[in-house]
Amino acid sequence: MMMKRIFEVDPWKVTTHEFSKEDKRLQESITAIGNDYMGMRGNFEEGYSGDTLQGTYLAGVWFPDKTVVGWWKNGYPKYFGKTPNAPSFIGIGITVNGEKLDLAKVKFSDFELSLDMHQGLLSRSFIYEGKDVKVKFEFERFLHIIQKEAALIKVKATVLEGHAKIDFDSTLDGTVVNEDSNYDERFWIPLGEDKDRRTIQVKTKPNPYEVPQFTVLLKQALRHNGKALQGEVTTDEAKLSEKLSVELDQGQSYELEKDVIVVTSRDIEEKDQADVAEDFMKKLQTKSFEENLAEHTATWKKRWETSDVEIDGDAAAQQGIRFNILQLFMTYYGEDERLNVGPKGFTGEKYGGATYWDTEAFIVPMYLAITKPSVTKALLQYRHNQLPGAYHNAKEQGLPGALFPMVTFNGIECHNEWEITFEEIHRNADIPHAIAMYTEYTGDDSYVKNEGMDVLVGTARFWAARVHWSKWRNKYVMHGVTGPNEYENNVNNNWFTSTMARWLLKYTLERLPLATKEAQERVHVTEEEKEKWQDIVDKIYLPEDKDLGIFLQQDDFLDKEIRPVSEIEDQRPINQHWSWDKILRSPFIKQADVLQGIYFFPENYTKEQKEKNFDFYEPLTVHESSLSPSIHSVLAAELGKKDKAVELYERTARLDLDNYNNDTVDGLHITSMSGSWLAIVQGFAGMRYDHDQLKFKLFIPDNWNHYSFKINYRGRLIEVYVDHQETKISLLKGEDLEILVNDQKVMLKEGETECLKA
Amino acid sequence: MMMKRIFEVDPWKVTTHEFSKEDKRLQESITAIGNDYMGMRGNFEEGYSGDTLQGTYLAGVWFPDKTVVGWWKNGYPKYFGKTPNAPSFIGIGITVNGEKLDLAKVKFSDFELSLDMHQGLLSRSFIYEGKDVKVKFEFERFLHIIQKEAALIKVKATVLEGHAKIDFDSTLDGTVVNEDSNYDERFWIPLGEDKDRRTIQVKTKPNPYEVPQFTVLLKQALRHNGKALQGEVTTDEAKLSEKLSVELDQGQSYELEKDVIVVTSRDIEEKDQADVAEDFMKKLQTKSFEENLAEHTATWKKRWETSDVEIDGDAAAQQGIRFNILQLFMTYYGEDERLNVGPKGFTGEKYGGATYWDTEAFIVPMYLAITKPSVTKALLQYRHNQLPGAYHNAKEQGLPGALFPMVTFNGIECHNEWEITFEEIHRNADIPHAIAMYTEYTGDDSYVKNEGMDVLVGTARFWAARVHWSKWRNKYVMHGVTGPNEYENNVNNNWFTSTMARWLLKYTLERLPLATKEAQERVHVTEEEKEKWQDIVDKIYLPEDKDLGIFLQQDDFLDKEIRPVSEIEDQRPINQHWSWDKILRSPFIKQADVLQGIYFFPENYTKEQKEKNFDFYEPLTVHESSLSPSIHSVLAAELGKKDKAVELYERTARLDLDNYNNDTVDGLHITSMSGSWLAIVQGFAGMRYDHDQLKFKLFIPDNWNHYSFKINYRGRLIEVYVDHQETKISLLKGEDLEILVNDQKVMLKEGETECLKA
Repeated sequence: MMMKRIFEVDPWKVTTHEFSKEDKRLQESITAIGNDYMGMRGNFEEGYSGDTLQGTYLAGVWFPDKTVVGWWKNGYPKYFGKTPNAPSFIGIGITVNGEKLDLAKVKFSDFELSLDMHQGLLSRSFIYEGKDVKVKFEFERFLHIIQKEAALIKVKATVLEGHAKIDFDSTLDGTVVNEDSNYDERFWIPLGEDKDRRTIQVKTKPNPYEVPQFTVLLKQALRHNGKALQGEVTTDEAKLSEKLSVELDQGQSYELEKDVIVVTSRDIEEKDQADVAEDFMKKLQTKSFEENLAEHTATWKKRWETSDVEIDGDAAAQQGIRFNILQLFMTYYGEDERLNVGPKGFTGEKYGGATYWDTEAFIVPMYLAITKPSVTKALLQYRHNQLPGAYHNAKEQGLPGALFPMVTFNGIECHNEWEITFEEIHRNADIPHAIAMYTEYTGDDSYVKNEGMDVLVGTARFWAARVHWSKWRNKYVMHGVTGPNEYENNVNNNWFTSTMARWLLKYTLERLPLATKEAQERVHVTEEEKEKWQDIVDKIYLPEDKDLGIFLQQDDFLDKEIRPVSEIEDQRPINQHWSWDKILRSPFIKQADVLQGIYFFPENYTKEQKEKNFDFYEPLTVHESSLSPSIHSVLAAELGKKDKAVELYERTARLDLDNYNNDTVDGLHITSMSGSWLAIVQGFAGMRYDHDQLKFKLFIPDNWNHYSFKINYRGRLIEVYVDHQETKISLLKGEDLEILVNDQKVMLKEGETECLKA
Repeated sequence: MMMKRIFEVDPWKVTTHEFSKEDKRLQESITAIGNDYMGMRGNFEEGYSGDTLQGTYLAGVWFPDKTVVGWWKNGYPKYFGKTPNAPSFIGIGITVNGEKLDLAKVKFSDFELSLDMHQGLLSRSFIYEGKDVKVKFEFERFLHIIQKEAALIKVKATVLEGHAKIDFDSTLDGTVVNEDSNYDERFWIPLGEDKDRRTIQVKTKPNPYEVPQFTVLLKQALRHNGKALQGEVTTDEAKLSEKLSVELDQGQSYELEKDVIVVTSRDIEEKDQADVAEDFMKKLQTKSFEENLAEHTATWKKRWETSDVEIDGDAAAQQGIRFNILQLFMTYYGEDERLNVGPKGFTGEKYGGATYWDTEAFIVPMYLAITKPSVTKALLQYRHNQLPGAYHNAKEQGLPGALFPMVTFNGIECHNEWEITFEEIHRNADIPHAIAMYTEYTGDDSYVKNEGMDVLVGTARFWAARVHWSKWRNKYVMHGVTGPNEYENNVNNNWFTSTMARWLLKYTLERLPLATKEAQERVHVTEEEKEKWQDIVDKIYLPEDKDLGIFLQQDDFLDKEIRPVSEIEDQRPINQHWSWDKILRSPFIKQADVLQGIYFFPENYTKEQKEKNFDFYEPLTVHESSLSPSIHSVLAAELGKKDKAVELYERTARLDLDNYNNDTVDGLHITSMSGSWLAIVQGFAGMRYDHDQLKFKLFIPDNWNHYSFKINYRGRLIEVYVDHQETKISLLKGEDLEILVNDQKVMLKEGETECLKA
């Protein structure tokens, strides 16, 4: 297995002192920043003429791009939604004595690039070595976590040798393109520029799909030592440039601050954008760069207070989990219920910034524990709002009920591979499963009784029609599906999918009588339907091999040439080495599939069942989906396979920092980042919750000194601390609670700490 | 099942007296003409502003278009080859007293459109009814069957009422586009126009795939009553227009003849094209339109003499088979070994004019019997020439040996659906199977001993690596394939594919010792390889259900919800009504799959096996591939299911004339057209040949009076005549031959006819 580590190990920082052109994109991905409202890759302010992926993204601003396929198949969606690369506001072009500053070309030394995870601040510095001149440049950049529309950039130039005439050119650029577009189309049309107000305004192209167009306005203003500055402004179509020059002698320095406001028609109507942006800018500029940064940092500090996971004794592990938490929170903190979590967040173009089932399966369990319940509820509500789209999707397949999409912005499916779009339908139970997680964790059953019931019944109706009765087997079967392991396509009776469908029907039947009268009337489930659903629950075929004691990923799995991943180490990742058909025929598993089902329902399987399945499937799993290792880690921990659990933790925690899957150049694996938290909290600390009972079963990796984390649980804040001698559990806030720790009952009281010997 | 018949039934003509705008495209497909060198849809000379598919195609002139897919998969080909819509030479714009003649807009009567199948001539007439004027227009058009580069068009205008000033505008147009292109690209770049020589020259766009660019030159000349005419010539980029006017009083008429020469860089270098076209034009114009037509007709007559199938008593059946033979011969007559048979011939854009396995499976058995052996040998040689491409394709999949492509112009795969490109690999035995057919039918084993052995061993090596040993089954299995029934994808152990692979290995092992010494040295098969191949032949898993007595299309077929096609009549064709996943889960079969295997190897199965399989699969088959009904018809005939055989014959014979699959608008199903011949000769007449023995087992459909056909067989010309009283078999030419007729030995002698009572 490959790995590539280009940043130094440090508990709170992601720093490098090296600049390698070959790794520029990787570096950009890892130094991406965001504030849940917008985000940007770690591009350079002064521009860069070498290989780079320029990327700025605005949450919830998207474009429906015409579906392009090799051969059209009935049912394909009309468009693929993608977050277009947004107008760029990063630009501060710089020339020194006439030479353009471009790290692909000029001579420089003392390079440093550093993401301060505690502050959410990106900084960079280097010494430019020109002819008879040396200038140190220092950049700082952050996206304001309170005033979300604001981006702040500061550049400081200090002349170390010689005399420098420095020209700055601060730009706004709406002529950006997507790298992954077909035929280099532009997604933005210019609406106008305003030299005086220093704004540009652009709008997404019209589309024939009744998807609203988005208008975006960008405004910039410059300051020097906190005081407003006016450069020479020129505009071109969808572009604005503001130039100013300074002359500095040796020892002198100059600081330029660029303040940017970005407003979108998601919040502000097109016609009001210029005025509102002006108000925002005024407000922003009532504080200096430093004051704004202090405010920003204080908010990050508060976030960290309830969410930090501390690991003592393993700096790489420590850095990994903090990086993940930071990036997740920079992507989504539940403050806007129209949004969701794109697999690459604001760090790349791939997956188009859309919503996947990742959110419910991997994000929800973590966010439940470290943010307010309202955050998860917003995620549930997001899907409820999109139910009309889900009904549309099912209808496209000729089936009743609701089918949540694989990829979407508005509920309507927009992915266009038949084996995924039409077949990777396990999502249609994974997504509703978050309702059960929410209800069980928070104890709040108001959602499942009301809106949740719309979701459960809609999806139940889909599932009941998607199975068919096999006379040959005397069972209900489910043909033509793709499980979470996308390295098998169009298989029959994928154990995970059928297990999830069965769960959905069972849970719906159990919860239906408890729903509100209004909800019951709304969904109107007939007796006949209930009988059918119960019959499917009782008679659905779930393939297993009794001799091996395992569930079968699908009917023909054992007919494959079964051999461990260890035999093909030199050919990994297989998705970059093998043709697709070879991957499909192989026994190698992209991501947890049977084990994902066991993970979802730990109480349903015996330890022996878990062990046999783990021992069978883990050696076959290549974990080429970033969503995979964490699930295996949690199971390994439960089964006492500590070394395996730790190995898989490391892989998930440092997936991007160490570029394990050799694809971090495309962006970070945002939705997988919760995996490291799950591996520690559900894995090492063994947190479970069912039937209103919170439980832990803890261990600590051998090479760690201690670890600790906090969770909120039903209005309480609980801290868990584990070292090799003892486990300490403190109820920092909230009512008394009896929990189970290593199968022992422990009563937690506010302000007290319970100590248990290891 | 739908059908739509817009042409009248007639034994030698395809005529309509109606013009319906809704059916314009269908009409154009059915009135397409070709001469193996070029072809064109039945567009109107004067232009048509309504819905139409303008189409002119030049054999072997193609363009590699960048692969466009929704989601890239390893191994996808870089380009999709397609025959671009060629520069159009049909145009003769006409205005009458200033009104543009456009049947979408003007008033007209007495419309007639007729394809004379015996002559290969398309004619059309109508009376234009303008203000105070009526003019009868009569068009004739043919593509010269001897001087292939020549197209001849004649239009005659006769004023029936009033006075008419008629303006003609004869055009050459290189600005054509493909309807199926991405983003309306043009595939042609203009090289220049020449007013004096009346030429335009264009070239296919450059491409990054090392595929040669093609240059095409078109030249026109006008004549009136055989005498050269010169109009006013103007040119625009890639366009030429030649205008002239006549004034006619009531009763007067005028004939304009347009002669066109089209040369391509396949035969004539770019720089020589203008001169050569001039020579060709001179040669063409040494004869009048009528003399050229007579020459053309004489050649068609000769073709018909040895290939016509006469059916007495069923004009629709008669018309169907003649239409099919005509269209096949207009597409390919084996006179250029660089060419092959595209599924739509020269009649539409779909399938891009490329070569599919259709040629070997459906065209070869017919062409063997009605053309010279050299025609089939040219088709075999075509694949041998493309072996380097086949090795390339296998390598792309990480496998040894040769894999013939699903779709190609040059041997390199260019299709881009993974379930087809990577998985519909049965082609890799179907294509070599033509070697066996050729050898067995002609008795000429020189090919299989030499070049054929390269093909056999190359493909054998692929197959030997494509199977794997299943410990679980204790058999060789073949996973992840798509059979001829493309309504199942990525299945395991498709009986047909495994049967074909087994045959290929077995046949190669049998033939290898008989190969020339040079061939043996070239292919260099080791003992170890032979042992492995034999082991696979002995132990490959071929799924069957012993209780039902059937072979299983694939492992899980019986797990489906089996129900007959008759239950879903209202939802056909399912490929236009159902989403893809629903089709895949269904038991409905697009085209013969298990039955295709039984058809290929009739001697390998008992009558009971054939019967059980036919009775099981036929009711499940929707025949939504045009390649399907003929195979079922042949088997039905063999099994004595006369009504079924006739029903399926009618479907195959009149597939396009009656638009059974509701897709003839896209073009004709050229490669399926041999099916009607196969249904009669192999089906009704039961022709078989194995072990140097020619056999017949004949019957005649109840409503036919008689049918007859001729075949060539090992240097002999044999005529078969069947009516309800007797069967007459005549050896028209060649050495004595003993054949089996209805299991009786019959000795044929030259010039004699053997009569057998029915």
